[in-house]
Amino acid sequence: MDIEKLLKTKLEDGQISVTETELFRHSHDESAHPSITPDVVCFPESMNDVKNIMEVAQKNRVPVTAYGAGSGLEGQVIPVKKGITINFERMNRVIDFSPEDMMITVEPGITRLQLNEHINRFGLQFPIDPGADATIGGMVATNASGTTAVRYGSMRDQLLDLEIVLADGRVIHTGTRAKKSSSGYNLTGLFTGSEGTLGIITKITLKLHGIPEHIIASRCTFPSLEQCAEAAYTVLASDIPVMRMELVDASSIKQVNEFGDYHFPIAHSLFFEFAGAKAAVEAQAILVKELMEDLNSEHWDEATTTQARNEIWKARHQMAYAFRHQKGKRFFGTDICVPISKLPDLVHFARELLENSGLEGGILGHVGDGNFHTLSLFDAENEEERERAERMNDELVLKAIEVGGTCTGEHGVGLGKMKYQRLEHGEAAEVMKSFKQLLDPDNILNPGKIFD
Amino acid sequence: MDIEKLLKTKLEDGQISVTETELFRHSHDESAHPSITPDVVCFPESMNDVKNIMEVAQKNRVPVTAYGAGSGLEGQVIPVKKGITINFERMNRVIDFSPEDMMITVEPGITRLQLNEHINRFGLQFPIDPGADATIGGMVATNASGTTAVRYGSMRDQLLDLEIVLADGRVIHTGTRAKKSSSGYNLTGLFTGSEGTLGIITKITLKLHGIPEHIIASRCTFPSLEQCAEAAYTVLASDIPVMRMELVDASSIKQVNEFGDYHFPIAHSLFFEFAGAKAAVEAQAILVKELMEDLNSEHWDEATTTQARNEIWKARHQMAYAFRHQKGKRFFGTDICVPISKLPDLVHFARELLENSGLEGGILGHVGDGNFHTLSLFDAENEEERERAERMNDELVLKAIEVGGTCTGEHGVGLGKMKYQRLEHGEAAEVMKSFKQLLDPDNILNPGKIFD
Repeated sequence: MDIEKLLKTKLEDGQISVTETELFRHSHDESAHPSITPDVVCFPESMNDVKNIMEVAQKNRVPVTAYGAGSGLEGQVIPVKKGITINFERMNRVIDFSPEDMMITVEPGITRLQLNEHINRFGLQFPIDPGADATIGGMVATNASGTTAVRYGSMRDQLLDLEIVLADGRVIHTGTRAKKSSSGYNLTGLFTGSEGTLGIITKITLKLHGIPEHIIASRCTFPSLEQCAEAAYTVLASDIPVMRMELVDASSIKQVNEFGDYHFPIAHSLFFEFAGAKAAVEAQAILVKELMEDLNSEHWDEATTTQARNEIWKARHQMAYAFRHQKGKRFFGTDICVPISKLPDLVHFARELLENSGLEGGILGHVGDGNFHTLSLFDAENEEERERAERMNDELVLKAIEVGGTCTGEHGVGLGKMKYQRLEHGEAAEVMKSFKQLLDPDNILNPGKIFD
Repeated sequence: MDIEKLLKTKLEDGQISVTETELFRHSHDESAHPSITPDVVCFPESMNDVKNIMEVAQKNRVPVTAYGAGSGLEGQVIPVKKGITINFERMNRVIDFSPEDMMITVEPGITRLQLNEHINRFGLQFPIDPGADATIGGMVATNASGTTAVRYGSMRDQLLDLEIVLADGRVIHTGTRAKKSSSGYNLTGLFTGSEGTLGIITKITLKLHGIPEHIIASRCTFPSLEQCAEAAYTVLASDIPVMRMELVDASSIKQVNEFGDYHFPIAHSLFFEFAGAKAAVEAQAILVKELMEDLNSEHWDEATTTQARNEIWKARHQMAYAFRHQKGKRFFGTDICVPISKLPDLVHFARELLENSGLEGGILGHVGDGNFHTLSLFDAENEEERERAERMNDELVLKAIEVGGTCTGEHGVGLGKMKYQRLEHGEAAEVMKSFKQLLDPDNILNPGKIFD
């Protein structure tokens, strides 16, 4: 069967590629999962193109994998069963922008920075920040979040409506343009995070937020991880709407200092960002400073200008990026999320695993959410090092699930977390699988992901 | 078939009732939908009891309807196909309270006031406030919200995990104790708002929030509804985390004045509540006052003590309650939710419908969410008056769907909104129905609700 030929009856020639460059580009993401090339890459320009691609795929039982920016961290876009990859870069338009409703409808290929560029001049922002300049479609597909989740929640919390092309070619809207609804069953939440295994997203209606008038960044340190967690709890319980609240453990600060010749205080550190109306934000910063001092924090530092803010957060930002691009090394990231009270134990546990593994690495925590990452570096040519990183991940995930947590807080299941689905979800995993079976009986939608 | 006898093999005698009083109590809710009695009422004391009830129901294809506090507004608990009603009043325990995680696991029969009583002394609150002292199970089942949704979202946004007994007797957990997750498919959101048609909720794990240190209430008026909506937009776009923001239109204020011999300024009124850390809240109140003045508001009034706050909000509170208990009258509530920019038009339209209907009534709006209610009174003995109220609802819902809104923002579908499901959800309604068919092939779970 010549898929390319079949697709050519439905799309323009320029919308189909089988060049080595394109096949390679669509064979991997930013994870360490092995690359696999698709048979063909399509570049739809409309929902109708996607429908036509699905029709070909369905008739011929060819796998279909959606591709955004390739910035994923769990191999979601790797077409493990080959077939058609749909690249959404030509579907990156704003379909409808309604500033007075703080709402926008976009195509899935728009990236979060492109989106913000479009709306910032109206005093609005889309604040979900996973770090990478991911596409909005990809962020929906993995239920991404990041440092602002403590304030705004994850992608699922931003969505009003999705337009979805189902495996059988039907096109549905999962919601409306109303900010809340108790009508029907909540399909929006179900398709969010389903990683292209239940349907292909072709339009997304998002809630937007106001751009804060004023931002203050601050930092402090504590002698123990337990005190960091207690401090984070105190802030949450005081109902202070922090914009970001991040933990970096002392060992990681030390590594950052060595890496960049910095002199950050080597202690467990909490990083804060306060954002909103000036007077309110100033009041928040003062209150949090007082709370932290009551809990015996040290090294409180605070800044309002962009440059000074960046300086304060430098140790946190360096953590996230410094390790990623060392020559000949690949990185392995874990992504567990646990009840906040378990965070100190789990961070301790992760630190020990990291040290015992002999791998270079660091720990970053979205401490207000109980979500943290270990980043560990392994030699790209050394299979044994890679296995050590994977064993560490296994141990961390099992511990997280044991204490009531999840194997993935924000990166998604993809290839790496499939093996934990039954353990984490129990019998519910069978219900999930039955939904997959119902909506995609021929298993053509991103096969080999989430459930095998 | 003698259901009572079959149930007696599984439950204690005291857990089963067929007395006229109990059958009547479980025949209705607070809506105007006609009463229907169940065949038998059960009072489970554990998940196992619920499982046993489901087993009897499934074997004998007997309908099962879950009942919380009976405070619903769309007839969700009315057992239109008779059968077994499960009353959760004996399942109202706190199973696990983890203040340091701001998280609690409860049985579905606990009411929101009981829950708050349990947790308030730890400085924590469960802020979702639909007005009535509903059970948490009922609030999950209908995806309830209310005046604090502008700050905290609706029930769906509060949930970490549900324990569900499925029609076939399987017991699943839809989530974990982690605050966020990208693992598996999101079943928590799907079961929330499914009104007992997909499974029976037996445990609920909720996020909790800190009790605000300080509260300020305020009120102001505007010459037009458009200006009220613009003012609400300005507050939202300024990223000010108001606790409540409610609209009462001028005609409704006039009615409240006449009803209670009050002297509130007869103009379209916005009611605010600010809550949080004292300094931040004071800053918010000042900022909003300035914003409102820039928009030519009048009659700004503000209060901090409980008594003074209640005084300021009196017109709003009177609206909600005064109309409800007039002798010989029943009330009919509508519940549309639309994009905020459409709110002035829709409120205008509703006011005209109300005036043309000749029925007494008022309009309340959760203006930050685009959700508003008309309350209209009709003579309980006068079928024609009731039909007028229903026609008004029809016209409002069609208009709401036309502008991209929903037939129900927070009351749920139940009996009253079934007829709009296909119109609102289009082809997605068929996907929803296929989920129902998959999970409840014999249609024993609250049959005759959401989808016919």
